[in-house]
Amino acid sequence: MFSQTTEYALRAMALLAYYPGELVPTPSIASETKVPTTYLAKVLQMLSSANLISGKRGVGGGYRLTKPPEQISLLEVIDAVAPIRRINVCPLGLTDHGSNLCPLHRRMDQAAKMMIEHFSGVMLADLIGQKEGSRPLCDKVKAAKLTVSVKK
Amino acid sequence: MFSQTTEYALRAMALLAYYPGELVPTPSIASETKVPTTYLAKVLQMLSSANLISGKRGVGGGYRLTKPPEQISLLEVIDAVAPIRRINVCPLGLTDHGSNLCPLHRRMDQAAKMMIEHFSGVMLADLIGQKEGSRPLCDKVKAAKLTVSVKK
Repeated sequence: MFSQTTEYALRAMALLAYYPGELVPTPSIASETKVPTTYLAKVLQMLSSANLISGKRGVGGGYRLTKPPEQISLLEVIDAVAPIRRINVCPLGLTDHGSNLCPLHRRMDQAAKMMIEHFSGVMLADLIGQKEGSRPLCDKVKAAKLTVSVKK
Repeated sequence: MFSQTTEYALRAMALLAYYPGELVPTPSIASETKVPTTYLAKVLQMLSSANLISGKRGVGGGYRLTKPPEQISLLEVIDAVAPIRRINVCPLGLTDHGSNLCPLHRRMDQAAKMMIEHFSGVMLADLIGQKEGSRPLCDKVKAAKLTVSVKK
């Protein structure tokens, strides 16, 4: 349902959320998220174009979030790479239908609405703030070493 | 969220649902669904591979549903071209996580579950059986001429 690009974008953003304000080098993002380097470069470019991250080139460079992880929803990340679109008018252009959708497109629009509601309420901070259970991108050893605190 | 292929597959199946048991010529499917012919051929091939439709070549040929429209859910159609997959194990292969998903992948899996539930309960017959309002693929003039009866 979600593209590889969406999955990778969410992983990259979850990783950056562990280090708010810090520039994380691209090779580190690639190894932590297990995303191929060239693919990651494209994903980071899309996230940067959507102003969710900003980058700095050269030695000591990398990427960081432009806002605190408490203020970035999963929907914003998804929309930066593969937007979830509501269906407002008949996709076939039937003028009779207009915004009075047929049962097929009404069902598809309901699905889009559900997804928007599902992902707009979850912030990056919600993903990484949990103390118990699995943590995004981290095995237990790495999770134990993480000292990043997330505002609740 | 849904690919062009998924949209086109749903349109083609909705059209065939108006004519259960009848072979509908491919050019008619193309014009009624407003799907480009070469793209449609690929979509029909996928639906045929999933045994949702069967085709007959040559004069008088075309495609028809393999089951009554009351027995084909929208989920089956979607799964034939771009399956909605649950996330059962950590996509990063973190052995610590296994089936104990992190909050990111748990949310993504919940979304997949919601979509499966949403589309598994709607049959093709539900789309075209409605007497009032917009009907899939049809403007008012065409809808008035349709004599196909759908079992309720």
